[in-house]
Amino acid sequence: MIIETTGHIFILMEKITPKIQIRIKLLQTGLRLFGKNGYNGTGIKEIVDEVGVPKGSFYNYFKSKEDFTVEIIGFYSDTLDVHWNELLAKGPSEPLAALRNSFEMIISLHEQSEVKTGCLIGNLAAEISEASELCRQKMRGATINWKKRIAGYIARGQAMGTIRNDISTRALTEFIWNAWEGGLLNMKIQASTTPVKECVRLLFDFFLKP
Amino acid sequence: MIIETTGHIFILMEKITPKIQIRIKLLQTGLRLFGKNGYNGTGIKEIVDEVGVPKGSFYNYFKSKEDFTVEIIGFYSDTLDVHWNELLAKGPSEPLAALRNSFEMIISLHEQSEVKTGCLIGNLAAEISEASELCRQKMRGATINWKKRIAGYIARGQAMGTIRNDISTRALTEFIWNAWEGGLLNMKIQASTTPVKECVRLLFDFFLKP
Repeated sequence: MIIETTGHIFILMEKITPKIQIRIKLLQTGLRLFGKNGYNGTGIKEIVDEVGVPKGSFYNYFKSKEDFTVEIIGFYSDTLDVHWNELLAKGPSEPLAALRNSFEMIISLHEQSEVKTGCLIGNLAAEISEASELCRQKMRGATINWKKRIAGYIARGQAMGTIRNDISTRALTEFIWNAWEGGLLNMKIQASTTPVKECVRLLFDFFLKP
Repeated sequence: MIIETTGHIFILMEKITPKIQIRIKLLQTGLRLFGKNGYNGTGIKEIVDEVGVPKGSFYNYFKSKEDFTVEIIGFYSDTLDVHWNELLAKGPSEPLAALRNSFEMIISLHEQSEVKTGCLIGNLAAEISEASELCRQKMRGATINWKKRIAGYIARGQAMGTIRNDISTRALTEFIWNAWEGGLLNMKIQASTTPVKECVRLLFDFFLKP
């Protein structure tokens, strides 16, 4: 049995048809190259060459590059969902500590990675949210999902008194998204995880506390 | 006398040679198109066509697209410097209020603009900081400049007791950069200025206060 990992999603490769296998490989390769070179910096030819299929066949799998990108955003967001759920479940039971632990675990992955990709959704938002309404809507949906999970933890922390409750759960969650995404951009500009570590430290040592 | 405005930099067009005039037009056009479509989404041909010069002549002005982009980052950052200095000088004398007023004035410009560009440096950082070390270094320099000005106001506010001083000036300034840039990304994803307005509200109503 061949088990292939795409981030934290395990796929039993024997159970799926060759067509679906190629589709997954195209998405995995696109995800990696978009992370490194962005949407416009990645050519379809580059992707099909890596996967080893002819360029024309790409359009048997995806209607267009835009359609492909919408699927990549979904693929990335699903992978991230599984990863966040795992991290939060394995972490401390107190919500503020569980959130902090998850952010710190993700930072340590960025630290180990030579390419400082940051967040694919933040990167694509910066590059193409004006150019593709379809991708923008998909990114919006992905961030709503992510924030729902964070908001659940924030609300529990507020109810327990470990997170400040003079600011609404929704506003705190939006703020965490902003600070985190900005911290990842700062990491990219400084080519160092220090800015995003410092960002998480201030959030959790000061701003989220009651 | 012809006065042309590039953001808030006024250039006396009579005093400069036609070659420099074309150079400035190439930078202005590049700045606008990079803001809309990003680095890889903007072709040199598109830029020279808008300015009305042959494609080959582009390389009389700039060594390469990368070199051009380095100059655009400098051009944007200089324009922003003038703008921030004006906003801060015209604002309230108390440093926290002066900063808040400047951020709010800039948000109102984003609100009036149909294209939600956000911050060119944040956008290019997301797209090309891995691909171009030259551009990354230039962006880093630009953010250091920007943060120096903000840090000056933060330090004054801390000395006056209107800004919290249990966190270092440097750490607060870095955090403001992160939150602001993330707020602008959030604006792009949601196609609305509400997220960045809320971000500034939380920073100034809560997190920066003593």
